[in-house]
Amino acid sequence: MFTDLVRGADVLVENFRAGVLGRLGFDADRLRAINPRLVYCAITGFGQTGPSSQAPAYDQIIQGLSGMMSVTGTEDTAPLRVGFPVCDTIGGLMAALSITSALAGRERTGQGCFLDLSMLEASVSAMGWTVSHHVIGGVTPVPAGRQNATAAPSGTFETADGLLNIAANRQSQFETLCRLLGREDLTTDPRFAEREARQRNRDALDTELTGALRTRPAREWERLLPEAGVPAARVLSVPEAVESGQLAHRRFFTDVPFPGDATRVVRTCGNGVLVDGQPLAPTGPAPVLGEHNDQVADLVTRWTGAGR
Amino acid sequence: MFTDLVRGADVLVENFRAGVLGRLGFDADRLRAINPRLVYCAITGFGQTGPSSQAPAYDQIIQGLSGMMSVTGTEDTAPLRVGFPVCDTIGGLMAALSITSALAGRERTGQGCFLDLSMLEASVSAMGWTVSHHVIGGVTPVPAGRQNATAAPSGTFETADGLLNIAANRQSQFETLCRLLGREDLTTDPRFAEREARQRNRDALDTELTGALRTRPAREWERLLPEAGVPAARVLSVPEAVESGQLAHRRFFTDVPFPGDATRVVRTCGNGVLVDGQPLAPTGPAPVLGEHNDQVADLVTRWTGAGR
Repeated sequence: MFTDLVRGADVLVENFRAGVLGRLGFDADRLRAINPRLVYCAITGFGQTGPSSQAPAYDQIIQGLSGMMSVTGTEDTAPLRVGFPVCDTIGGLMAALSITSALAGRERTGQGCFLDLSMLEASVSAMGWTVSHHVIGGVTPVPAGRQNATAAPSGTFETADGLLNIAANRQSQFETLCRLLGREDLTTDPRFAEREARQRNRDALDTELTGALRTRPAREWERLLPEAGVPAARVLSVPEAVESGQLAHRRFFTDVPFPGDATRVVRTCGNGVLVDGQPLAPTGPAPVLGEHNDQVADLVTRWTGAGR
Repeated sequence: MFTDLVRGADVLVENFRAGVLGRLGFDADRLRAINPRLVYCAITGFGQTGPSSQAPAYDQIIQGLSGMMSVTGTEDTAPLRVGFPVCDTIGGLMAALSITSALAGRERTGQGCFLDLSMLEASVSAMGWTVSHHVIGGVTPVPAGRQNATAAPSGTFETADGLLNIAANRQSQFETLCRLLGREDLTTDPRFAEREARQRNRDALDTELTGALRTRPAREWERLLPEAGVPAARVLSVPEAVESGQLAHRRFFTDVPFPGDATRVVRTCGNGVLVDGQPLAPTGPAPVLGEHNDQVADLVTRWTGAGR
């Protein structure tokens, strides 16, 4: 039955510990022999090979081993956890990207492939300049706190009533910010006039800017600064974030029936992309256990009957 | 010239502010008219439509608006920044996934499409149970600190000489952990015997476990616990993370020549997947400015000459 399923499948995804599917009689070579067009993706914490390949992993384990916890937190509190299962997400996204790439590539070659996905590697690759500054530039990353280390002013600031992110990374954005804050004097202050100087003196700069930012509420700055081209927005809680008018306009959430109970709904997220103007949304509820058994059996019969 | 390029292209990716490419004469409809097979992906902070579509955005802005900062940090220090540009990464990954999916889909339909990617939406969708617990379960997310809220013991613990992540999410893992720590009494303690009780009493449980964990160094626990099936690993700095023997075994890093200076090298990351056992690595350095001008011009000539 499993052989028949493999014979008719485009994609096989599993996340057993490395080697488990092989011990069940279906390693990558056997799967390829059954169906040379199969895209087989195995997702593990560390990959199918290497000294850690047999170690168990969850998101938290990979957060620690990738170095991402070490840069999350303040100088006093790091290492801290990224507050959502970011390594699970990035591992899954990279797996999906690999699979769709392999499917597109199969159209040219006619061949499937074996995708050996490591959550640890996907996570390190996702860290961008935090890793490249170190491996190329020799710069040791430090805990980020609320700052973006690549530019100043770029971080989280206090206002009259709440926290505001400002990312005035470009010279023109810095000058506009100072003008809107009534602190044009800062643009000619030798401590702050040039980009590199601002990074060296970022604490002093933040103190000067915060004095002015405290004169108005965050919502007001959130309107004034972006209108003038300075990226700025409030720091929202999750409840505030999901109530955003922007997400509503984009129909980001879709309510689907609860599996097996049509009187309840499950609110599901979109995935960030509109295709020809339309959000992608689930077409129905997740299946209940065994719901598709008959359809799967029918499929297998058809594939087997067709001599595939 | 741009029209000729579009005519021969499979994919067009841009990240102008929403509407800019349209004002330059190439909105999605015009691009489709030029090349119906084109996959056109526009990446923006907030998407092409809606009240925020014209607002400027960088990673930090999206970290704040998505709610992910609100769950990152300790109770006292949140909201904090995730210490790497996670929203840039997730936006880019989701764009790449959308594009490769559209290319695979085009093989069936013969048609391209317009992919309107919002970094904000991609980021919220990446937050997993942090969002779903709220929008489905009505649970308000709290700052994670060093804990994984979905289970206990699951978080970061002190040892004799450094921090250790432990994710003993399953009952069997908890029992194994207690045995290895010489604290089997905890498995029958009414405060800790059941999963829900452990979550309610996680602070007390962490105190009990830490007492035992402090008797050995982190490296020793990192060997003992995973061998017995309990996910555990040290919390590494970025320099420690990139020196990992596992990454070396998997040939995660590749040195490519520095663009325009073959005497230097640039160390590049893999992307987390081995394809048929081989890492994906750049085939050469990034181009210097204008390096491919002639080749692009040749391509255009060929496409134009072929009457496409």
